[in-house]
Amino acid sequence: MDSTYDTNNIFAKILAGEAPCIKVYEDNLTLAFMDIMPQTDGHVLVIPKERAVTIYDLSVEAAQACMLTVQKVGKAVERAMGVTGSTIFQHNGRSAGQTVGHFHFHVLPGPLSGLKGHGVTFEDTDKLQQIAELIIAELADL
Amino acid sequence: MDSTYDTNNIFAKILAGEAPCIKVYEDNLTLAFMDIMPQTDGHVLVIPKERAVTIYDLSVEAAQACMLTVQKVGKAVERAMGVTGSTIFQHNGRSAGQTVGHFHFHVLPGPLSGLKGHGVTFEDTDKLQQIAELIIAELADL
Repeated sequence: MDSTYDTNNIFAKILAGEAPCIKVYEDNLTLAFMDIMPQTDGHVLVIPKERAVTIYDLSVEAAQACMLTVQKVGKAVERAMGVTGSTIFQHNGRSAGQTVGHFHFHVLPGPLSGLKGHGVTFEDTDKLQQIAELIIAELADL
Repeated sequence: MDSTYDTNNIFAKILAGEAPCIKVYEDNLTLAFMDIMPQTDGHVLVIPKERAVTIYDLSVEAAQACMLTVQKVGKAVERAMGVTGSTIFQHNGRSAGQTVGHFHFHVLPGPLSGLKGHGVTFEDTDKLQQIAELIIAELADL
């Protein structure tokens, strides 16, 4: 994956309203939604609205906005899932494990160890929706 | 680990000049240096100079500065190690795998899979220094 942005990637379609997502947070510059192939319960993705493939393509403004959203959403994920820790990660380039060509931070409750595979198994939509509602409630309380 | 900052943590000592590090980059708000227990060759840590335990404790200014430094250092790490991908991760809270109580981004060439354990094995200092010099050379070329 090079830094040439493919406008047909699934996150571009979500941002364009052409594909669904289970949203937990949105502002002018970012969107956060449930990973539909979660590596653990409470796995959320944070993306910028601008077109950027990797962290190296992100504008200063979008990078800052993503960090602010990760700070909000990560704390809400911890509280929603009843844990005291969380992990943030993101891949740049297909060789490093990036599967969608639009920059995204993964936000997970707990550690990296013991996770399910990246982008392997679809989760039940009702369960994702229930977890999203817990996270949204915590976001409202932050 | 709660958000109470322990001024005796090793990164605080590095920032105070009381402990050594193999530095690859520094600016007014951040420092980047070689992880002495790397999970793969080219494993660099990026930290803010302000006292913050987790991402949730970071000021807006420090969060932005860390992102800018990760963007610079990560690209240099890719080039220094001759790969086209990189991974960024960071842990918040001991239960999530955070081993030093000062916020830090891990910057790695390549994917998360196949890594050595987190904070397990010390690397030879000469080898770390050689890799640091490659990264520093790439930073000068960015």
